[in-house]
Amino acid sequence: MVDTGKRNIGAFTGLYPTPFVLCGTYDAEGRANLAALAWAGVCCSAPPALQISLRKSRHTYGSIVSRRAFTVNIPRADDARVADYCGLVSGRTHDKFAEAGLTPVRGEFADAPMVDEFPVCIECRLLHLLEIGSHDLFVGEILACWVRGSCLEPDGSVNPLRVSPIAFAPGDGRYYELGGSVGRAFDIGKSLIKAVEK
Amino acid sequence: MVDTGKRNIGAFTGLYPTPFVLCGTYDAEGRANLAALAWAGVCCSAPPALQISLRKSRHTYGSIVSRRAFTVNIPRADDARVADYCGLVSGRTHDKFAEAGLTPVRGEFADAPMVDEFPVCIECRLLHLLEIGSHDLFVGEILACWVRGSCLEPDGSVNPLRVSPIAFAPGDGRYYELGGSVGRAFDIGKSLIKAVEK
Repeated sequence: MVDTGKRNIGAFTGLYPTPFVLCGTYDAEGRANLAALAWAGVCCSAPPALQISLRKSRHTYGSIVSRRAFTVNIPRADDARVADYCGLVSGRTHDKFAEAGLTPVRGEFADAPMVDEFPVCIECRLLHLLEIGSHDLFVGEILACWVRGSCLEPDGSVNPLRVSPIAFAPGDGRYYELGGSVGRAFDIGKSLIKAVEK
Repeated sequence: MVDTGKRNIGAFTGLYPTPFVLCGTYDAEGRANLAALAWAGVCCSAPPALQISLRKSRHTYGSIVSRRAFTVNIPRADDARVADYCGLVSGRTHDKFAEAGLTPVRGEFADAPMVDEFPVCIECRLLHLLEIGSHDLFVGEILACWVRGSCLEPDGSVNPLRVSPIAFAPGDGRYYELGGSVGRAFDIGKSLIKAVEK
């Protein structure tokens, strides 16, 4: 660790961590499908919204455009193998739900299927589609967030370690689980405010 | 853990994990500033691009619009306190770099400052600004990704555990570090392909 200088590794998508999720849709034939992706993030609080980005070539792309709906389903670290499988084959020729042993549950608010086995499933309706390049960005308004009871605290908040989500690491190409907490947001920096005000 | 059913906790931004980063900008007076945020994600591979989302009220919002540039700086878990501090005060009235003990380094490709002490700094030029609601979404084309030498493998790829990034957990309101790897992307699902083909 002697070298603490930085190197420009080029125009690289080096954002850490990115969320590894499965996007659920119904296609033109009404078949439930899942797309694995990590180009995603929250993008608004009111209305609550998230973005997912997809290549035009993906089967899911047209399904979102025509149904104007999708779900975002968060696999547990223990689901990494089946979730990864959903990124290896196409919904055009594969019934990924059946092959991965997952159960589709029709959304209550959005015209898209959720993964019954996953701890968190988010229903979205399409708000915006922004063309960027290899990938286009879909903004989905969050209509509902379904959370497994065992992942909820008594006060109704989500316990992220019980969700056990998967992070994808660009470049490294590996999935990671969450480690320990390193503090509370909008809180641990307060000690520095006091130090600065002295 | 008896209850394995799901509960709809409402229109909640329950995406896990989200990346906790500092956005670097120069304001109208040329002062280097940092905005803490977790509403961010990769959104395109070619051109490489990421999105960050900000409230219109934030000082950084106008800085990005006028300079058409920003940086995304990834703090280590050990930097959680100083990074959190940057989310507690405004750049209108505070020199966050100085108060947090961070060193601004002028971007080489984008008109925005980077955090010298952080392991990964990404230079972006503004490609798109999409109005959504409480937050608007900025798409930045990635022009360079600076990585500390000690975070690079001999083959030049990034070792995410050495970066030691911070995940923010919506709802829980805590920061988390990365845990162990749970497998290789586009790889660990292959065993399921073989099982399905049998």
